[in-house]
Amino acid sequence: MISISETVPNATTRWITLSGGVGGAKFAAGMNTLAASGEHDILINTADDFNHLGLRICPDIDSVTYALAGLNDRNRGWGRSEESWNCMATLKEIGAESWFSLGDKDLGLHLFRSHQLSQGESLYQITRKISTSLGVTSRLIPMSESAVKTIVSTDCGELDFQDYFVRHQCRPTVRSVRYSGIETAKLHDIALSSLQSPQLEAVFIAPSNPFLSIDPILNLPAVRSMIKALEVPVVAISPLVGGRALKGPLDKMLSSMGKPINHQAIANHYAGLIDCLIIDSADISESRSIDIPTHTTQTIMNCRKDERSLAEQAIVVAKRLKSNLSSRRPASRGTGSDQL
Amino acid sequence: MISISETVPNATTRWITLSGGVGGAKFAAGMNTLAASGEHDILINTADDFNHLGLRICPDIDSVTYALAGLNDRNRGWGRSEESWNCMATLKEIGAESWFSLGDKDLGLHLFRSHQLSQGESLYQITRKISTSLGVTSRLIPMSESAVKTIVSTDCGELDFQDYFVRHQCRPTVRSVRYSGIETAKLHDIALSSLQSPQLEAVFIAPSNPFLSIDPILNLPAVRSMIKALEVPVVAISPLVGGRALKGPLDKMLSSMGKPINHQAIANHYAGLIDCLIIDSADISESRSIDIPTHTTQTIMNCRKDERSLAEQAIVVAKRLKSNLSSRRPASRGTGSDQL
Repeated sequence: MISISETVPNATTRWITLSGGVGGAKFAAGMNTLAASGEHDILINTADDFNHLGLRICPDIDSVTYALAGLNDRNRGWGRSEESWNCMATLKEIGAESWFSLGDKDLGLHLFRSHQLSQGESLYQITRKISTSLGVTSRLIPMSESAVKTIVSTDCGELDFQDYFVRHQCRPTVRSVRYSGIETAKLHDIALSSLQSPQLEAVFIAPSNPFLSIDPILNLPAVRSMIKALEVPVVAISPLVGGRALKGPLDKMLSSMGKPINHQAIANHYAGLIDCLIIDSADISESRSIDIPTHTTQTIMNCRKDERSLAEQAIVVAKRLKSNLSSRRPASRGTGSDQL
Repeated sequence: MISISETVPNATTRWITLSGGVGGAKFAAGMNTLAASGEHDILINTADDFNHLGLRICPDIDSVTYALAGLNDRNRGWGRSEESWNCMATLKEIGAESWFSLGDKDLGLHLFRSHQLSQGESLYQITRKISTSLGVTSRLIPMSESAVKTIVSTDCGELDFQDYFVRHQCRPTVRSVRYSGIETAKLHDIALSSLQSPQLEAVFIAPSNPFLSIDPILNLPAVRSMIKALEVPVVAISPLVGGRALKGPLDKMLSSMGKPINHQAIANHYAGLIDCLIIDSADISESRSIDIPTHTTQTIMNCRKDERSLAEQAIVVAKRLKSNLSSRRPASRGTGSDQL
C-alpha cells in the first residue's frame, strides 16, 4: 500500500455522500447530475470487497461507478448493462469456481484494478482513473485503503459477507454484524480532507443497508464522532419503503435482530448522528411518530429522473437545516419530530 | 512451484508430439483423433508464455487445447471460435493496456490458470484439468515448469517474443533467437517419463516454427541428446509449403538469418535429430535434392479431416522407419536422401 500524496489545496467539496451499493449508488448518481466537478465526494463502503480467482472485487465501488457513468443494469439491479457472460461460461466449462457472477465487461475493471494494486497503486487512484475514464465527475473515495471485512454472524455460524450475500443468497438468519480489521483501519486521507472542506454544506447517508454498507464507514476509528462534530447538516435517506427493503436483506436483518421494520428503527440506528431522515411519501402516516425530523418525498428511484429528484430534495432539506442548525446543535441530533 | 508427484506406472505413451502454437496444434489435433487415451503426449513450448495484467498467458498450450477440443477459430487462426471481446472493450474504455487481445471465453482459462498457479498448483496439473474438462484425451505437457523466455534479437534490438510477435507484428528483422533461463530450466518430469516409455513408437516434430516453437523444447538441458538416443523414429513435418510459411514469420526469419527458405533449411536445422522430413506434395520436385529421407503428402490442414490425414501419414512413415531403424542408427540420422 503506498501513501496518498494527493492533496486537496483548493477543496471545493460541497456535498459528501456515504454510500454502499445499488440503492446508494442511484442516489449518488442523482447527486452527480447536480454537482459540478469537485463539488461531490462519495465515501464508499469497501468492507464487502473480496478476492476471487485472484481478482480484487469491490462491489460497492463498481456499483457506484456504473450508476454514475450511466452503465448500470437497472433490470438486473447490479452490474453493467448489455453485459455478456462468456468468461463465466468457460469457468463453468473447466470446473472453476463460478458461484460469483463475473460479467465480461465488468471483468475489465477487476483485471485492471487487481493489476494496478499489484503494481503498488492505491485503490483510490485506480478508482479515480476508472471513474474519470468513464466520464464520472463526482469523486469516488474508498472508505479506506486498509482491508476491512464484514462478517455476518448467522444461525449457520459466521459468514464472510459474500458467502452470506451471494453463496447463501441471504437465507441464513442474521444475529449480528461485525467488521474485521476495522479497529486498525484508517479513514481514507482523501475522505478526511473532504470532511474538513470549508465549503462543505451537507453530508448525506444514501439509502443503503445501515448494517452492511454504512456502518463500516461510520465505525472506522473517529469517523462517527467526526461527522457528529461537523457544523453542517447530516441527512439520511431511509432504505425502507412501506415496511420493506426495496432490495437486499435489510428487512429480514432488522427482524432477526429483534428490531421493528420501520423508519423509526433507521432513525434509532442513526440517532445522534443525523439531523433529518428522508422517507418515502407512501409512509407519510408513519412520519408523524418518528422522534427525529423527517422529510417525505419519493425515495424509490426507477429512472435517472427519480435519482435526480431525490438528490434535489436532499439538498433542499440540507439547505433548510443549515439555516437554523447552529442554534440547535448538538443537542437536537436524534431528538425532536419536526417535519421538514 | 511444487514438485510433480504424478508417476506413470503404466505408461502407454506410444507417440509424442513436440509442438508450438497454431500449425503444430492442428497436427496434434490430428494425432488426438487417432490415439486412444494415454497413447499420445504433446510436449508444448512455454517459452512464449508471459504475464499480462497479472494473468499468466500460455499461447501455445492454449492453442493446442483449443485445437484438440475442437474450439479453435480456424478463420482467425488463433484463439477460440465464437469469441466475444467485451472485456477488451472495457480495458480500452478505461485506458488499460490493450495491445494483447483477450477474448472473453479465452479469459476463463487465463483466470483459472493464474489463480491456480498462485495457489501452488503446477502448470502441468492445471493444463491437465483444463484439457480433460474440455474432453481432450491426449496429454498436454508443458515443456517445463521453469520460466524460459524467448528473446528475439532484431534490428530494433532485443525484443521479448510477444513484443516482437504481437506488438511489432513480426516487422523487425530477426538476427537470432535465444531462450533466457533455458540453461537452468528442466524438462518436465512427466515429459521425461513419457520419453522413457517402453511403448514409445515415434516422436513427431509438428509443423511449428523451429526457432520460436521447437528449439525451446530441444534446447532444454539434455533433451536434444535424449531424443537423438531414442531407439524410435523421429519424424518432422516441415512448416514450409511452396517456399513460404503458412502462418507466422518463419520465412522472413530464415531469410534474415541468411538461410534459404526451403525444406533443406528445415532438414539442416534438425540434422542428426530426425529420420524423415514430411513435406507438402506441392514440393515433390524439391524433395529429390534434400539430403535426408523425405515423405510427401498434403501438409496444409484446412479442416479436421486434413489434420487426421497428416497424422495418419506421419504414423505410417514412423512405422516404416521403425522396421529398419535399428540397422541404420545412429549414423544414418541426417544423411541419405531416401524417399519414404
